[in-house]
Amino acid sequence: MFFSSDNSSAAHPKVMDALVAANQHYAMPYGNDPIMDEVRARIRDIFEAPEAAVYLVATGTTANVLSLATYVEPWQTIYCHKAAHIQMDECGAPEFYTGGAKLVLLDGDDAKFSAQSLQSAIETTPQGFVHSVQRGAVSITNATEAGAVYTPAEVAEISKVARAYDMPVHMDGARFANALVAAGCTPAEMTWKAGVDVLSFGGTKNGLLGVEAVILFDPKKAWEFELRRKRGGHLFSKHRFLSAQMQAYLQDDLWLTMAAAANASAARLSQGIMALPSATLLHPTQANAVFAGWPRAGHRRARDAGSAYYFWPHDCSLDGPDDEILSARLVCSWSTTDQDVDKFLDLIAG
Amino acid sequence: MFFSSDNSSAAHPKVMDALVAANQHYAMPYGNDPIMDEVRARIRDIFEAPEAAVYLVATGTTANVLSLATYVEPWQTIYCHKAAHIQMDECGAPEFYTGGAKLVLLDGDDAKFSAQSLQSAIETTPQGFVHSVQRGAVSITNATEAGAVYTPAEVAEISKVARAYDMPVHMDGARFANALVAAGCTPAEMTWKAGVDVLSFGGTKNGLLGVEAVILFDPKKAWEFELRRKRGGHLFSKHRFLSAQMQAYLQDDLWLTMAAAANASAARLSQGIMALPSATLLHPTQANAVFAGWPRAGHRRARDAGSAYYFWPHDCSLDGPDDEILSARLVCSWSTTDQDVDKFLDLIAG
Amino acid sequence: MFFSSDNSSAAHPKVMDALVAANQHYAMPYGNDPIMDEVRARIRDIFEAPEAAVYLVATGTTANVLSLATYVEPWQTIYCHKAAHIQMDECGAPEFYTGGAKLVLLDGDDAKFSAQSLQSAIETTPQGFVHSVQRGAVSITNATEAGAVYTPAEVAEISKVARAYDMPVHMDGARFANALVAAGCTPAEMTWKAGVDVLSFGGTKNGLLGVEAVILFDPKKAWEFELRRKRGGHLFSKHRFLSAQMQAYLQDDLWLTMAAAANASAARLSQGIMALPSATLLHPTQANAVFAGWPRAGHRRARDAGSAYYFWPHDCSLDGPDDEILSARLVCSWSTTDQDVDKFLDLIAG
Amino acid sequence: MFFSSDNSSAAHPKVMDALVAANQHYAMPYGNDPIMDEVRARIRDIFEAPEAAVYLVATGTTANVLSLATYVEPWQTIYCHKAAHIQMDECGAPEFYTGGAKLVLLDGDDAKFSAQSLQSAIETTPQGFVHSVQRGAVSITNATEAGAVYTPAEVAEISKVARAYDMPVHMDGARFANALVAAGCTPAEMTWKAGVDVLSFGGTKNGLLGVEAVILFDPKKAWEFELRRKRGGHLFSKHRFLSAQMQAYLQDDLWLTMAAAANASAARLSQGIMALPSATLLHPTQANAVFAGWPRAGHRRARDAGSAYYFWPHDCSLDGPDDEILSARLVCSWSTTDQDVDKFLDLIAG
Repeated sequence: MFFSSDNSSAAHPKVMDALVAANQHYAMPYGNDPIMDEVRARIRDIFEAPEAAVYLVATGTTANVLSLATYVEPWQTIYCHKAAHIQMDECGAPEFYTGGAKLVLLDGDDAKFSAQSLQSAIETTPQGFVHSVQRGAVSITNATEAGAVYTPAEVAEISKVARAYDMPVHMDGARFANALVAAGCTPAEMTWKAGVDVLSFGGTKNGLLGVEAVILFDPKKAWEFELRRKRGGHLFSKHRFLSAQMQAYLQDDLWLTMAAAANASAARLSQGIMALPSATLLHPTQANAVFAGWPRAGHRRARDAGSAYYFWPHDCSLDGPDDEILSARLVCSWSTTDQDVDKFLDLIAG
Repeated sequence: MFFSSDNSSAAHPKVMDALVAANQHYAMPYGNDPIMDEVRARIRDIFEAPEAAVYLVATGTTANVLSLATYVEPWQTIYCHKAAHIQMDECGAPEFYTGGAKLVLLDGDDAKFSAQSLQSAIETTPQGFVHSVQRGAVSITNATEAGAVYTPAEVAEISKVARAYDMPVHMDGARFANALVAAGCTPAEMTWKAGVDVLSFGGTKNGLLGVEAVILFDPKKAWEFELRRKRGGHLFSKHRFLSAQMQAYLQDDLWLTMAAAANASAARLSQGIMALPSATLLHPTQANAVFAGWPRAGHRRARDAGSAYYFWPHDCSLDGPDDEILSARLVCSWSTTDQDVDKFLDLIAG
Repeated sequence: MFFSSDNSSAAHPKVMDALVAANQHYAMPYGNDPIMDEVRARIRDIFEAPEAAVYLVATGTTANVLSLATYVEPWQTIYCHKAAHIQMDECGAPEFYTGGAKLVLLDGDDAKFSAQSLQSAIETTPQGFVHSVQRGAVSITNATEAGAVYTPAEVAEISKVARAYDMPVHMDGARFANALVAAGCTPAEMTWKAGVDVLSFGGTKNGLLGVEAVILFDPKKAWEFELRRKRGGHLFSKHRFLSAQMQAYLQDDLWLTMAAAANASAARLSQGIMALPSATLLHPTQANAVFAGWPRAGHRRARDAGSAYYFWPHDCSLDGPDDEILSARLVCSWSTTDQDVDKFLDLIAG
Repeated sequence: MFFSSDNSSAAHPKVMDALVAANQHYAMPYGNDPIMDEVRARIRDIFEAPEAAVYLVATGTTANVLSLATYVEPWQTIYCHKAAHIQMDECGAPEFYTGGAKLVLLDGDDAKFSAQSLQSAIETTPQGFVHSVQRGAVSITNATEAGAVYTPAEVAEISKVARAYDMPVHMDGARFANALVAAGCTPAEMTWKAGVDVLSFGGTKNGLLGVEAVILFDPKKAWEFELRRKRGGHLFSKHRFLSAQMQAYLQDDLWLTMAAAANASAARLSQGIMALPSATLLHPTQANAVFAGWPRAGHRRARDAGSAYYFWPHDCSLDGPDDEILSARLVCSWSTTDQDVDKFLDLIAG
């Protein structure tokens, strides 16, 4: 009954096996290992992008900020949702890596912003006027911080606006697999076919130890990306241990299998909670996270039994009226079991 | 016969075991895992530094540049050897992380600089004069890029100069274990007792997959370090996988055992080469690397048999007179065997 | 009838005289000229701040960003109004100089924010949590971009909140003189007595060629400021030409006289416009700028007669119905005459 | 007898006249004043560069670092002489503005480096190798910090090497006029015809209050330059006061007349000193500065009579043996008179 975050779950055993298997003898360092060649080829294949440049890094923040820095000048803007990870949870890493670009914050339900809200924000940033910051890039998080999913059509609509203003599109896909499974489309449809230029392709939250790929669908800036990665301290000498994780991730669609399991657990959890008399749903459950409220008494029972999760959007006290509704975030991972879910539901139902 | 670099060797099996063992259920993220508590306590104990702040990162460049950025202002200098990793091999990461500090390059044999050369360089940087960059910090690499080792007394002499000018001392210890074993002193004697303020305590080149500790002997700047680590993208959510590596590293002195083995292999190799009639030694073999020259014919035989290593200090051709002396760098790791060494010696001897 | 901006007006003749007078023989460079000694003493006297560090720079952006960079770490926030010059008109200079600090934007009428809105914004920035940017500083613009004035009491209320969260307070006083005259208080009351730590004390918009003072009421960070000024390229070798301007500015209260004249012109203009049947006032006229609307026909006559000013908040067309109300910004300077104002009023009245 | 620096001399009276003349009514701000149009046209004409982008800034450091930042990426190098102003006297401004580029220091007499020394330094910076910083730009100072002058042929030779490695060439022309007069060539011959891409065209040290032009011979990066200038706080609202200075500077070749006068004074001074029995010359006197040594007794008499200048390369005491040779730097400006020179010579001759 551990729903604190998918970033605290174990790695999949197959990933550990691959890691151990990779630990033989010597291997060329810095991404020149043969496993990386396989990984690159496999990702190009999965994304139907034979020209794409593919790199591995170890954290989601790194994937995001190296991507953004490669596409955004220091005097430019990054349009994103006000709840975006790059705004809320990276301690200013985007500003650090871009040399001071400015995040322009967009509103929207479920941590999604619309093409319309993007357009209107863009229009309020004067262009060609030296006193103002200039238009830079657009960053979409899919799945969002509120567990919602952009459809390929929604992504395409946003990209169309970005394109009209000559801005590239970044997708923060820390939970890309969960979004993809939810949307039921191909990786290409969710990304470059919908106008995405660069993707942070997450693995850490979905069963790896700590690996994210960055995919530059147009490889023109590949060398700049490599220099930025090195200069940021993010190029691993024993790179094979990143490669091996990603290799296992992509083998036999393990990544999709794990994401589907996590999403299914979240759906089961969400439905179970909503079956309670006074439960409320803060956001639709589209990926692997549930944002819901239920009576304090249920929280108390769950916590007493050792459940772990965060109240949401802010901390709450277990002391107070039994029937007051307190809301929480529950995140499922590949390793969440039906038993976990059902036991938790039993606890909060009382 | 793989002597290209210690950064390409395998991880020690005990490290892999620890990693697999850590992969159970959920663990608190971001360094709040219980293994990290053990690691911190163990490092404080090993270094006789009960107050030290201890952090883990995944690459040596990261350990160095976060350390330096924490102690150096953007308008200050970093005194280091001209062959230092921070100058030659980090693509400007120190400048990036410090916001533009200036590396002042010192000379000296075997990639070591002396207290005297430091003092004279300091004296040429005006202080309290606004047009000039200001004195910042001193960075010592131990063992050096040329396989030499500073003794605690040499470190102390350098630190004394640094201290006289109010500068903190950083030690790049990517190969700290090799230096320590060579010097035959305690970790405390090599570091804070000799005036070192912050240490990059390497693990990756000595049997880990990719973990370095940063030890701030004075914890005053610990929180700033944490913010810089996060902002650099270097804080791992599944941090336990870093902790577990370091835990295994320190367990039963595995780190010292591995370094001793690497150093012993290098000594055997060095002695074997120097027994050849026309061999030359570029630098004394004090740690785990040999810098030596021998006839081209020997290189040809070694390469033909599949040996891997770099010519040094620049690339050479295998075509040319048989008896011309070509020099090379040979790096040993914990996994180098006597058989490897002896077979290689046989090959180059002809 | 030139109301485009106070930054386009002429310098006062006494300032030119001082400049010519300073142009004799040689003078010590870089702020070591004797005029600067006088200026420093005079400013300390005017502000009743005998310990204050005082520096001159040539642009308002520079004064703001050097001040902020001296007080804010790269991973911190700057709380300011969303219309603030530092957010809207400096092309990201605050981000550049601070190394990537994040501006947190506050709302409020007349480009003023309240202590309450500051407090609630602060409360949504988690502190002591490494994933989030940290609390940095508060920046107040007085007079505001909408021509409004904070009273010393309002400043003090804001400072009290800042202080409660350990944040220093910066005042962007590009139009400080106009605000001071409007508020009818002393320089000390408007600044350090109300909790302001550092002031951008403007001169350029009020009769100088291009000089702003930065006043650090606590001189502790003076040396850091000097290094930042030099490193930014903002230390003038022939500094006496900055000093001389500021000397003339402060002589016989010229600065207050000029600001009073500009404010009086704005008041006359505002009252005149509001006497028109359908005129509207966007913001109260408290300093030297009027934000008002009147019928298009009036705009057409004014423009045809050579008047210069900006429509506000966005550009409008002179083509369209005569009686549609179009709003504009009209800025007065020390050199605006009653004749200018009255002629303009006649034109728009028709 | 003031030879401390040309940066401490007065502005030429014609410059002051132009400044006063420009102080009429209102003028468009931020470089949109009509005087700037004239200045731009005149500079293009003088440099035979009809396409060049021309900008004004107020300090030499600013001209240099905005130029370099426009042409150099953060992970690149700037090759320059180890005595260059950008290395010694700008407090790390190049590192700040470029985001951390690395200055590679070249040797050479008289603060000049040769094409050969450049070439050999370039060859030691690996290219296309991600661990190393990458080749960026070359910066030549003309006249040099040692009062020497590069001929157009020497500049062309250096540029040829730079070009061979795809690097642009910057010229720090804080004393460009002095160099030009000394070399007896055209502005075009000294710059773009010799391969220079961007010039810091100095005025401050040669009779202005504080103005330097930046000339981008290829205007492709003009907009980026404008954004960097604004973002650095270097765009003046009352820009006409910069324009007016430069206008007067170029009018009737005032700039060349002033530089010729300064150079002639230096030649007279140099010859006079070298006529003394035991005098020594540190560097050839080619522009407006003399680096020479003469007996302490002469220094004592000169100082006692109120002369101002710096001992060079380091400070010396007036106490000591009369006949010990102490060396000094003596800088002449447009305003140095023959009487000043002769009186000084009389003093040191005794």
